[in-house]
Amino acid sequence: MGTIERINAVADRVSETHRGGDSLVIVVSAMSGETNRLTDLAHQINPKPPAREMDVLLATGEQVTIALLSMALAFRGCDARSYTGGQVHIRTDAVYGKARILDIDDARVRRDLAAGRVVVVAGFQGVDEGSNITTLGRGGSDTTAVAMAAALRADECRIYTDVDGVYTADPRVVPEARRLDRITFEEMLELASLGSKVLQTRSVEFAGKYKVPLRVLSSFEPGTGTLISYEEKAVEQPLISGIAYDKDEAKLSIRGIPDEPGIAHRVLGPVSDAHINVDVILQNVGEDGMANLTFTVHRNDYRLAREILEKTAVEMRAQRVDGDENIAKISVVGVGMRSHAGVASRMFKSLSEEGINILMIATSEIKISVVVEDKYTELAVRALHRAFELDQPR
Amino acid sequence: MGTIERINAVADRVSETHRGGDSLVIVVSAMSGETNRLTDLAHQINPKPPAREMDVLLATGEQVTIALLSMALAFRGCDARSYTGGQVHIRTDAVYGKARILDIDDARVRRDLAAGRVVVVAGFQGVDEGSNITTLGRGGSDTTAVAMAAALRADECRIYTDVDGVYTADPRVVPEARRLDRITFEEMLELASLGSKVLQTRSVEFAGKYKVPLRVLSSFEPGTGTLISYEEKAVEQPLISGIAYDKDEAKLSIRGIPDEPGIAHRVLGPVSDAHINVDVILQNVGEDGMANLTFTVHRNDYRLAREILEKTAVEMRAQRVDGDENIAKISVVGVGMRSHAGVASRMFKSLSEEGINILMIATSEIKISVVVEDKYTELAVRALHRAFELDQPR
Repeated sequence: MGTIERINAVADRVSETHRGGDSLVIVVSAMSGETNRLTDLAHQINPKPPAREMDVLLATGEQVTIALLSMALAFRGCDARSYTGGQVHIRTDAVYGKARILDIDDARVRRDLAAGRVVVVAGFQGVDEGSNITTLGRGGSDTTAVAMAAALRADECRIYTDVDGVYTADPRVVPEARRLDRITFEEMLELASLGSKVLQTRSVEFAGKYKVPLRVLSSFEPGTGTLISYEEKAVEQPLISGIAYDKDEAKLSIRGIPDEPGIAHRVLGPVSDAHINVDVILQNVGEDGMANLTFTVHRNDYRLAREILEKTAVEMRAQRVDGDENIAKISVVGVGMRSHAGVASRMFKSLSEEGINILMIATSEIKISVVVEDKYTELAVRALHRAFELDQPR
Repeated sequence: MGTIERINAVADRVSETHRGGDSLVIVVSAMSGETNRLTDLAHQINPKPPAREMDVLLATGEQVTIALLSMALAFRGCDARSYTGGQVHIRTDAVYGKARILDIDDARVRRDLAAGRVVVVAGFQGVDEGSNITTLGRGGSDTTAVAMAAALRADECRIYTDVDGVYTADPRVVPEARRLDRITFEEMLELASLGSKVLQTRSVEFAGKYKVPLRVLSSFEPGTGTLISYEEKAVEQPLISGIAYDKDEAKLSIRGIPDEPGIAHRVLGPVSDAHINVDVILQNVGEDGMANLTFTVHRNDYRLAREILEKTAVEMRAQRVDGDENIAKISVVGVGMRSHAGVASRMFKSLSEEGINILMIATSEIKISVVVEDKYTELAVRALHRAFELDQPR
């Protein structure tokens, strides 16, 4: 939800769809800039505001939008009712700022729908067991929409974003990238966690848990977007659905440690204890018989992880610690990989032809990720897009 | 609650008082300008926004303030918890925009107070039986404070305003006006309804119903303000406590109607049916044996009341209808009137000495009101202030 114009545009679309006979629950986020305005106010008063009160403050952002959208719908002759997270009992745990939805009492929403009303719900917020206001953190409004759709067993949950669907690759990098009509849930989950910014991982996970049919559309343009489906047995599964890249990681290495069992645990344990997530991990033994361990972390955690690693290096009498912030992770994702061999070799061949050196490799059942120098990111994505013929209609 | 500076000033005072050992519940209103900002947003979207959604929207104003004040208190090392009207179950009727408080569930507030916390409650708002958000209308935050004090049987309810107490007369009109240390509840109720803008009538009525000791203080300056007390037997009751004036009324007359029983009802019934409140009423019979009826209404209702009266005049074959918007009502208020005669004659003598003609008179047990031409307002108030020696310390 951006401006007044945006609210009016949404009201136009909702009232039209409602006249078509659909029962609709609309989940909205705050108007653009509102969260920043409120956060600024808070920091003027207290540089470290209590998390509980921060949630009370931020929750007003969506409350303003639900009221305004309901007014805009009323203006169009469409009977609408707004509800805060607390009013429709979106019950969460008590982790302020990044609460998780536990359940939703949909009785009230069902009553309104039965009465022919459009229901407008504040996204991003809920209440804990003690009726304290909580917020869900990043992507929270998407998660509310998915949770609401799950509770109501909705035919479809439509997520309106600033892109018109999921693409085979970032269209800013690959002009030939195509919008996918469909993508499997597992592929979407991989893409979300691999750095595609269309949907937050948590909302996709939630959709998967309750098998909510999810559709990603544009708020601005008409179109059918991309449907995230749960059908495993499509007639013909594409080998690869998309290419993702992530420039938000950094690489750390500890070199020249005695090759003994338990190295990975001794090196990575302290990192994990500091709540730093480790992504790709590579362990090898050099010609001198000494072991090396390399891993990636989020770039924001790089400095802290390096400090921890240097302490470990002293304890383990390692030869040295290296770090590199200029890396990128490039991934190919596709459920077709399960039944087709040769994806990895086709990927490595394509990168090699472009003279791109692979620093690390990580695989799962339906994705292959490689870590490369970040200056090669766009080149690598475009080469792979071509190599897997993603620009061809199927 | 005005600005960030104002919130910080309130936090300073609250944390200081709390350190002194008092249990405190703070009721706050929206930051200044916020209600106008939200109302503007609503009207951009819908010129006649549904009342229910208007309340959802406006309630965010106080929610922002409770969060910010709690953050400001936390910054001062003072453990505080904020609550919306719904969270502390301020239950109201379902009249959106001017709901009335029915009851408050104080269990949660008591638990926090017992744990040594300061409780910060959003004024002006509640929820109806169906958990819909309601707002209380004008003076709503004062009423919330009084209701909360009543529920908790608080030692005192302090209302912080932009004046430092109740005065013997408006200090802008009478420079010698004195702040009253105490005033009885009945006097305060008369003053509130007679046009003194310090407290809204409804919050005073609510205080009286539950005998809540109420103190009016300034938000800006130190001082003990004015205590509204319920003690009827003070050692020496002052004859008159204060002079009030009200320029918001207008006068209407219907003249030359046959003098029969039931005139007042036939004339005023249709006015009352249009939800117009009638204040002072005067009925007399002229030398020609025909009756005249004169009454005052709020100036906003003048035009409509006059239309109604002209229709009635035709039906009753009255000679004519007169109207006058340039009037003022001047009142002297004091519980001492009950035991002392001569207040009325002293009042009339004083006005007569200034050459002020009295157009109408209305009395109650503890007040006398006169209607005069509005150009005499300041002269009359000053003359009466002197006549009753209100500038003398007692």
